[in-house]
Amino acid sequence: MSTPRTPPPLAGGTQGPHDLRPLLGIALDALRDGAAARRGPLPAGGPDAVTQRVHAAAHPVLPDHGTGAEHALRTLVHALAEGAADPADPLCAAHLHCPPLAVAAAADLAASALNASMDSWDQAPAASTLEALVTHAIATQIHPEGDALITTGGTESNQLALLLAREAATRHGPVRGPVQLLVGDNAHHSLARAAWLLGLPEPIAVPAPAGTLDPAALDEALTELGGPPRQFLVAATAGTTDAGLIDPLDDIADLCAAHDARLHVDAAYGGGLLFSDTRKHHLRGIERADTVTLDLHKLGWQPAAAGIIAARDPRDLDALTHRADYLNADDDTEAGLPDLLGRSLRTTRRPDILKIAVTLKALGRSGLGALVDQVCDQAAEFADLVDAHPAFELYDTPAISTVLFRPTRADDHHIAHVRRTLLTEGTAVLGRADLDGCRWLKATLLNPHTRPDDLAALLKLVELVEPVEPVEPVEAAPQPTPPEGSTPR
Amino acid sequence: MSTPRTPPPLAGGTQGPHDLRPLLGIALDALRDGAAARRGPLPAGGPDAVTQRVHAAAHPVLPDHGTGAEHALRTLVHALAEGAADPADPLCAAHLHCPPLAVAAAADLAASALNASMDSWDQAPAASTLEALVTHAIATQIHPEGDALITTGGTESNQLALLLAREAATRHGPVRGPVQLLVGDNAHHSLARAAWLLGLPEPIAVPAPAGTLDPAALDEALTELGGPPRQFLVAATAGTTDAGLIDPLDDIADLCAAHDARLHVDAAYGGGLLFSDTRKHHLRGIERADTVTLDLHKLGWQPAAAGIIAARDPRDLDALTHRADYLNADDDTEAGLPDLLGRSLRTTRRPDILKIAVTLKALGRSGLGALVDQVCDQAAEFADLVDAHPAFELYDTPAISTVLFRPTRADDHHIAHVRRTLLTEGTAVLGRADLDGCRWLKATLLNPHTRPDDLAALLKLVELVEPVEPVEPVEAAPQPTPPEGSTPR
Repeated sequence: MSTPRTPPPLAGGTQGPHDLRPLLGIALDALRDGAAARRGPLPAGGPDAVTQRVHAAAHPVLPDHGTGAEHALRTLVHALAEGAADPADPLCAAHLHCPPLAVAAAADLAASALNASMDSWDQAPAASTLEALVTHAIATQIHPEGDALITTGGTESNQLALLLAREAATRHGPVRGPVQLLVGDNAHHSLARAAWLLGLPEPIAVPAPAGTLDPAALDEALTELGGPPRQFLVAATAGTTDAGLIDPLDDIADLCAAHDARLHVDAAYGGGLLFSDTRKHHLRGIERADTVTLDLHKLGWQPAAAGIIAARDPRDLDALTHRADYLNADDDTEAGLPDLLGRSLRTTRRPDILKIAVTLKALGRSGLGALVDQVCDQAAEFADLVDAHPAFELYDTPAISTVLFRPTRADDHHIAHVRRTLLTEGTAVLGRADLDGCRWLKATLLNPHTRPDDLAALLKLVELVEPVEPVEPVEAAPQPTPPEGSTPR
Repeated sequence: MSTPRTPPPLAGGTQGPHDLRPLLGIALDALRDGAAARRGPLPAGGPDAVTQRVHAAAHPVLPDHGTGAEHALRTLVHALAEGAADPADPLCAAHLHCPPLAVAAAADLAASALNASMDSWDQAPAASTLEALVTHAIATQIHPEGDALITTGGTESNQLALLLAREAATRHGPVRGPVQLLVGDNAHHSLARAAWLLGLPEPIAVPAPAGTLDPAALDEALTELGGPPRQFLVAATAGTTDAGLIDPLDDIADLCAAHDARLHVDAAYGGGLLFSDTRKHHLRGIERADTVTLDLHKLGWQPAAAGIIAARDPRDLDALTHRADYLNADDDTEAGLPDLLGRSLRTTRRPDILKIAVTLKALGRSGLGALVDQVCDQAAEFADLVDAHPAFELYDTPAISTVLFRPTRADDHHIAHVRRTLLTEGTAVLGRADLDGCRWLKATLLNPHTRPDDLAALLKLVELVEPVEPVEPVEAAPQPTPPEGSTPR
C-alpha cells in the first residue's frame, strides 16, 4: 500500500476554481513564452528540430515519481506552444484550422472543470438542457422543423449522415438493399471512409470537372443506376476543402427529388455563411437537404471539437435510439429523467455545447456574420493582390475564403517545394491542392485579425523561395519544369 | 456589407494569453458562484427546475446582436455550474464519471487556446510528437511492443477494436468471412452497438452468471460455432460498468489461443489498476490481448475525452492508413513530413494528449497509483460500512471501486425510487444495477478526496428516504415488496 498523502487538487466543486487559478496562470505564462520563443507561425527547423525539443521537454513521459503540477504544466505547455502551427498567426493559413476566440477557449475551460458527461441526465443536468436548446437554434437556421446533434467534427457528421440514410432505408416497409452513396469528385475524403467504416458499397464518384459537382453528370449517374432497388444518398459539398467551392445545391436537390434519392450537404466549411446576411444566399437549397454537416471549429472560431449534424426530419435521428439500463432505464425515463443516450454514438461525451453557446450569445448572429464577412473580404483582397502581381497566377475568384495561387510558370515540384520550404523556415503555413491538372498553393483565410500587410508579406515570402533543388542530385540532371497539361481556369 | 469593427480577441498567438486572462477570471468566478448556489452534488428540483433556470439564463440562444463576452460567459458558466452533477462532490458517485484534476483541466485550456489539429503535421508539429511519445509509453505498460491511439472514450475504442479485427481478417490471404464478436452478458453496451455500426453480425452473448464472463461457457460457445469459417473476436471486460468486476483474463486468453480467436479487453474502467503496484496483478493476462480499451477520464482523473486503444501488434493499426492529398501527399511524406492521418478515424482532432501528458509527468506512476489505491480503499471501507449496517445488504466485496448495496428487504421499485428521490432532492447521485435477479444501488467511488464522513453521510441519506409511494394511486393498492427471486452472492 502506498503512503497516504493529500491527493492533488480537483478542478470542480466549490474549491476547484481557487485551486485552478494559479495553475491557469502558469499555463498562460507558458503559452505566452512558448509563442514568443517560436518566433513565427510555426517553429523553424522542420520535424527533426521539433521532435528533438519535445523529447527533451517530455522525457521521461511516465516517471516513477512525478515532477509536480507546476513543473509539468510549464514545461509541456511551453513545448506545445513553441512547437505549434498557430492559426492565430496570420501567416498560418493552410487548412480549415481556425484560430479560436478567447471567449470560446475560456468557456471550454469550464467544460473541463465540471466534466459533465452528456450520456445521462444525472451526469449533465444543465448541460443537456443547454445542448437541446442550442442545437435546436442552430438547426432552425437551416430548416424551421429541423434538429441537430453535436459531433466531433465534419468527419463524424458525414459518417452519421450515411448511417442515418442506412437506417432510414430499413425503417419503413421492406428493406431496399444497402444504401448507395454518390459523391462528387470534389467531396471530402471522409465520405468514402464512412462507407468503408459502415460496411457499405464503395461510393459512386460523380465528375466535378469545374471543382463543383456537375448536375448533368449526377442526373446521368442516377438515371443509369440499374440493379436491385437501393436507397441512394447524394452528398453535395458547400465549401470544398481544396478550393472552397459550393456545389449547385438547389439543382442537386431537384435531381434528388426527381430520383427519390436522399440528399446530404457537407457544409463543414461553407455552413458558416449562414451567419452572414450578405452571403447566406450562396447556400440556397441547403434547406432541402435531409442532413447537413456543420463545423463550428471552422467558420465558427471554436476550439475543436465543435461538429454538428442537422437533420431536416428529427425522426431520422431516432435511428440512434439506444438503451443501457444504467443510463436510461425505462422506469427512469417514465419518471421524467431525460433520455440522452440517443443523441450520439459516443457514450461519455464532453459538453462541447458550452463554448458554442457562449460564443453565439456573446457575438450574436451579426457578430459571427461580421467575422465571416471579414475573412471572405480578406480572401477577395488577397486574390486581387495575386491577380495584379506579374509573378503569380490566380486559380479563381474565391467563393468563400480560400485562395488558390501559384508562381507563374512554376511546376508542381516547385509548388510542393515552396510549401515545404516555408514550413521548414517556420515563416508560413500554406496548403496545397491539385486542380485542373496542376498544383496550387492554398491560403485558407480564417483569421479575422489578418491585415492587408500580412497578405502582402505572405505573397512576398512565396516569391522569395528559391527554385527547387534537383530531387535526386546523384542521378542525371532532372527535367526542368515538365509540362503539366491543362491551364488554370 | 457589415460595418467593419475590431474582431473579438483570439486565444492563441503572443497576445492570446493576455486576452484570455480576464475571461478566465470571469469563468472561474462563475464556476465558484454557480457551485455555491447549487448547494450540493446536483441541483435540487429535478429536470423541470434545471430546465427552467437554463432557459432563463440562455434565452435568446442566438440573438441578432450579442451580449458581449463577459456577460455571456458569466451567465452561461454560472448556469452550467449551478446545474451540474459535479463529480468533485463526494456524494456524486453514480457513474464512471471522474472529478478531473485541476492540473489536467489547466493543461486542457492550453489545448483549446492553441487549437492544434492532429490530422497533419503542419497543424500540430509538437503535439503530434508528444502524442507519439505518450501513447507509446502507455501502450508499453501493457505490452513491451505495443502501440496505442487516442480516442474519444471507451465506446470509440471498442468500436475500433472491432474494426481492426474486421480488417485483420481480410488482410492476409483469403477472406475468412465477417468477424463474429462474442461478448459476455456483462459487457458494455457499446460493443453490440459497434457491431451494428460496422454492419457486422449481432454479437453472440456468452453467459456471465456471476457477473464475469464464464470461461466454460465461452469454451462451449467457441466449440459449437459451426458454419462458414469466420474470424472470432472475444471481448472480455476488466471492470464491468455495473459491479466493477474483472473477467478471468488469463483463462479467456488461453481459450482464444486454443480457438484461434482474437481477444479484446475492455479495460475502460479497470485499466487504471495498471498504475498501482499493489493492484495491477488483477489484470494478469491483459498483455495477451490483441487490443485493449483504456480510458483516462475514468481512473485517470482527466476531463473527457481521454480514451485510448492499445494494440499488441502495431501493424494492426495500419488498417486505419488513409490518404488525402491536402493532408499527407506522398511527396510530402517522402520529404519527411510525418503522416498522421492514420492515427484516428477522425480528421480534425483536438490534442487530448496534452492534459494526459501533463498529468502523467506531474504525478508519475506512483502518484496515479496512489489515487487508484485511495479510491479502491474507500470502496472497501464503504463496503464494510454497508456490511456492518443492519439496514443494508452488500452485493459483494468490491473488485475495484464500485460498491453495490441495497436497503434490506427493499423491492426494485424502492431502489429506483431512492435513487430518483436523492436526485430530485439534490442530495446525492447514485447509480443502479440489476444483478442476480434484483436491483442494487451503485456507488462508484472515483474521488480521492472523499472522506469516511462522506461515506457515512451517503449511507444515512439512503436510509432516510421514505418508502416509495404507490405508482398508480388511483388503482388498487400495489403489492408491497414483491419477492424478487435470487439472493445476492
